[in-house]
Amino acid sequence: MLSETVWNSNLKELKIDYLYHLGLDNTEDLKGTFKDTRFVCMFGSALRAEMFAKKAGKQLGFTVEGPIGKTERFSLYKIGPVISVSHGMGMPSLLILLHEITKLLQYAEAIDVAYIRIGTCGGVGIEPGTVVITTEAVNEKLEAVFEHMELGKVRRYITKLDNKLAESILKSAGDIKAVLGKTMGTDDFYEGQGRLDGALQPRYKAEEKMEYLKKAAEIGVLNIEMEATAFATFCSRADITGAIVDAALLDRLKVDQIYVGKEELAGFSEKAQQVVLNYIKSKING
Amino acid sequence: MLSETVWNSNLKELKIDYLYHLGLDNTEDLKGTFKDTRFVCMFGSALRAEMFAKKAGKQLGFTVEGPIGKTERFSLYKIGPVISVSHGMGMPSLLILLHEITKLLQYAEAIDVAYIRIGTCGGVGIEPGTVVITTEAVNEKLEAVFEHMELGKVRRYITKLDNKLAESILKSAGDIKAVLGKTMGTDDFYEGQGRLDGALQPRYKAEEKMEYLKKAAEIGVLNIEMEATAFATFCSRADITGAIVDAALLDRLKVDQIYVGKEELAGFSEKAQQVVLNYIKSKING
Repeated sequence: MLSETVWNSNLKELKIDYLYHLGLDNTEDLKGTFKDTRFVCMFGSALRAEMFAKKAGKQLGFTVEGPIGKTERFSLYKIGPVISVSHGMGMPSLLILLHEITKLLQYAEAIDVAYIRIGTCGGVGIEPGTVVITTEAVNEKLEAVFEHMELGKVRRYITKLDNKLAESILKSAGDIKAVLGKTMGTDDFYEGQGRLDGALQPRYKAEEKMEYLKKAAEIGVLNIEMEATAFATFCSRADITGAIVDAALLDRLKVDQIYVGKEELAGFSEKAQQVVLNYIKSKING
Repeated sequence: MLSETVWNSNLKELKIDYLYHLGLDNTEDLKGTFKDTRFVCMFGSALRAEMFAKKAGKQLGFTVEGPIGKTERFSLYKIGPVISVSHGMGMPSLLILLHEITKLLQYAEAIDVAYIRIGTCGGVGIEPGTVVITTEAVNEKLEAVFEHMELGKVRRYITKLDNKLAESILKSAGDIKAVLGKTMGTDDFYEGQGRLDGALQPRYKAEEKMEYLKKAAEIGVLNIEMEATAFATFCSRADITGAIVDAALLDRLKVDQIYVGKEELAGFSEKAQQVVLNYIKSKING
């Protein structure tokens, strides 16, 4: 799956590679279970990963295997050529999953796998329920950059995403309202996204928050979540085709809190999932 | 619980405050359930939060209530004066929990609550199984600072922790090997902690990694995890007494991978939990 220049050459020195947070290692029959994987669909919560697995099984006509490995940190299901797996909230948690699932697929000798993160987000100037497919991930400074600390130094990585994949997924939306746009990835939900409803007195005022969100809207940011830049950078570094498909739960130009009811919320989240399922169906049957 | 200068004055404008990730809101009887809370014990995984709740129930002699609220993001239990709750992996996920649990306790009119994070970590020059109680949290640059992005600008916060609480917890260790030391909090498990076993070719060599870890050891860092600086800053800003109690699973000066078996691992994690339970017992009975 990874080219020789990208795959970590240090791993050759390990007798056994423990994928600690997945609860699997490379002495197991990873090839038998995972070699035919073509799509890895990733979700913040274990509940969503499980629900998507069931839906994918039904709609694509495959048996749902799993949870495979341990479920303490992530929950992983396999449905024919599809993996459905959770990554927790935020980039640090997501990065653990990305490293371990990529090692797993490399050991399994899987070929040509696409990574698709399916989530929920705050919209910026769009109607709740709209599905945003990311064209470019930007950080809190509105730069298309992921800043990562390595050995105490900041490394700046580009956040390129495959726009062909984004456009193909958009075409699969059917009746579901979906748009292409930039996505801001942040390291916090409250103050990191300029919310005014955290526990502590924020160091900014309502006007400054609105100014910030409007500046984001001006450069084409349609939504804000907590994973986009790390996801895009990892895919770009690994040369893996990646896409981010998020359903907006609210419009941050209007509110900070998520007011939609439990059922409506599930409906929003399912829209993003259905768009991706439509796309996968078209690729499997096509 | 929070003083007027610290408590977010913007919350007065909300008719209902939805604690979205906990699945609770301030129209419920939070006072009835949570007013008597004195200790919030936090864990990375839902499994550990549940296991600790059961152990606390048994050892302290209280009924275990919960999970309370939704369990999609965090799992929350109440055991007499103790809350046991999960926070996921990494600071962005932890910060969500900290904001929402603090709002919950403020609405419940709880008084004088201590926050204790109980986790696992990589040790730096210490034997696996050693419990480290944090005296100071440092970031990847080895500064006692938490850098946080707010409206696109970096804010630098101090990471002061209550050393009296750390020392009291140390005194409760009994037969369990426990030490006081500095803890490094990072935003990544693989490259962010200088590991050589990620999926992608790292941009640093083994010698550079060792140099970095030794520099950390020299300033008194005994362990590395993914939450310390955000936790310390939140407690410091909120004026909440906080402590971090982590069991080391490995010595990073020797290895990158976690080789201990499942049972031994659970044993290490339980040591940190037992130290805290001893401390809580002494406070409740004292």
